[in-house]
Amino acid sequence: MEKKCIGIDVGGTTVKLGLFEADGALIRKWEVPTRKEEGGVHILPDVAASVRAALAEERLSLSDVAGAGMGIPGPVLENGYVEVCVNLGWRDMNPQQILSGLLDGLPICSGNDANVAALGEMWQGGGKGYSDIVMVTLGTGVGGGVILNQKIVSGKHGLAGEIGHIRIREGEKESCNCGGHGCVEQIASATGIAREARRAMAANPETASAMRRFGDAVTAKDVLDCAKEGDAMALEVMETVGYYLGWALAVVSMTVDPELFVIGGGVSKAGSFLIDFIQKYYERFTPISENKAGITLATLGNDAGIYGAARLLL
Amino acid sequence: MEKKCIGIDVGGTTVKLGLFEADGALIRKWEVPTRKEEGGVHILPDVAASVRAALAEERLSLSDVAGAGMGIPGPVLENGYVEVCVNLGWRDMNPQQILSGLLDGLPICSGNDANVAALGEMWQGGGKGYSDIVMVTLGTGVGGGVILNQKIVSGKHGLAGEIGHIRIREGEKESCNCGGHGCVEQIASATGIAREARRAMAANPETASAMRRFGDAVTAKDVLDCAKEGDAMALEVMETVGYYLGWALAVVSMTVDPELFVIGGGVSKAGSFLIDFIQKYYERFTPISENKAGITLATLGNDAGIYGAARLLL
Repeated sequence: MEKKCIGIDVGGTTVKLGLFEADGALIRKWEVPTRKEEGGVHILPDVAASVRAALAEERLSLSDVAGAGMGIPGPVLENGYVEVCVNLGWRDMNPQQILSGLLDGLPICSGNDANVAALGEMWQGGGKGYSDIVMVTLGTGVGGGVILNQKIVSGKHGLAGEIGHIRIREGEKESCNCGGHGCVEQIASATGIAREARRAMAANPETASAMRRFGDAVTAKDVLDCAKEGDAMALEVMETVGYYLGWALAVVSMTVDPELFVIGGGVSKAGSFLIDFIQKYYERFTPISENKAGITLATLGNDAGIYGAARLLL
Repeated sequence: MEKKCIGIDVGGTTVKLGLFEADGALIRKWEVPTRKEEGGVHILPDVAASVRAALAEERLSLSDVAGAGMGIPGPVLENGYVEVCVNLGWRDMNPQQILSGLLDGLPICSGNDANVAALGEMWQGGGKGYSDIVMVTLGTGVGGGVILNQKIVSGKHGLAGEIGHIRIREGEKESCNCGGHGCVEQIASATGIAREARRAMAANPETASAMRRFGDAVTAKDVLDCAKEGDAMALEVMETVGYYLGWALAVVSMTVDPELFVIGGGVSKAGSFLIDFIQKYYERFTPISENKAGITLATLGNDAGIYGAARLLL
């Protein structure tokens, strides 16, 4: 029997876990709450206890497992060291070493959660069968991951794949969370799309729009729903989003030239309707070659992290 | 005696060649003219004959050589295949296979010349001691190369490292050679800097400037010389160049996060005076982290290609 592997996706609210066959088949998945109190000191013992319990239920032992991978919501150095992870309260520790110690020396790998999710989509998701992909996750913020030759590109300071913080719009007055102005995240995240919609409504007070019924509480989903129904102002907002996202992907192509972009996160639930806006401008801004990367949807949703974490081991 | 290696940099006018020790010490370098007639059919036989002659003069034989690397001015597929290389007249051929045949089966590797030059700068130039660098060559055009983990990132369609064709300026009306509008190359190449200067003079006809004595024949070197002497309009042009180049490097950092940027090409002869303009905006546009890539000057000049080609083998 080939050994199993375990994927662990440590989030700020829950830790997601998955037990996998070596070929990527998911045997079972489960969650435990993330106890952040006392500097997050309980998180890894909780994970270890939960792994042991799940294996026992499957009538497996740690010796049936090749190892575990772990996605962490912050920068992770090459040796697994975490200087600071504000989301979990961790500081100056090596979580993969600690977890290995709690699991009888089981081999553990770790990486940044966005990068790990990109690896998951490459392995068993929208990028299955590809080895050079860039994932862009359009959620509350915009995350990303660069996978070349089936391996995560972390970057020298853990900043590779920070697609959300590519500066793309000149003249933006509001600050991004990163301190910059005009980041992709400010336009194409769920919060960014909602803000673009509020701006459009405020700038054109005389223009009717189906978005107006939501007022300032308008969400990205509202914008996308209205655009799908043909609302002109919502369509205009999506043109803006597609323009800047397509531009950003073009820039990424001129740097690493992937085979495929995989678009995930809550905003990507809008499906091919969203992809079409991005594709239009991506093609416009890559006139240098007929050979272009594809743009496709992520398929693993919230499970990308556990898939990618398990794949870290292989 | 450890085996030598050979670096070959095939240019449109001359082929540069270098014989190296395995540790990167240059034993000798020489050139042969690039005979482009008849579809460039003479180029590789000329190279092979020249290699044999040089080895004979050094009292070496092909068996003393581990292999040769070759930089080619166009896209090269992973297996060495060249679909088309307009600069040389080559079409649908595998130059590395042909050259190997002409040199008794000597192992030959090949790659795009800009990428190969970046590898050379990493090995023995401005990036010596680093393993993750991005080179930007400011010449007639703007070229580039991405090196991660000491290896060239070519990209799926040979477009990785095309830093010159990152779209960076909105609203540009003139076309770039690539068909795009607002590429880095249109601003930061030698021709781009000269054009910015002509535009500045035309837009401010009343303003005195030391650049005016050159008229429309103003060159990038003239602009840099005038800026160094404190000419306000030339300084303004260099601010624009630094702004867009710094912005482009910031975007590259958010994608692959290198340890070092190496700036080469004719424009880089301006030295640290140029770097300072780039650095100022690079730092402004990477507020996300205190940990930033360095920006330094290339040191190998026109020899970067032969160094990098030799390094391809190792």
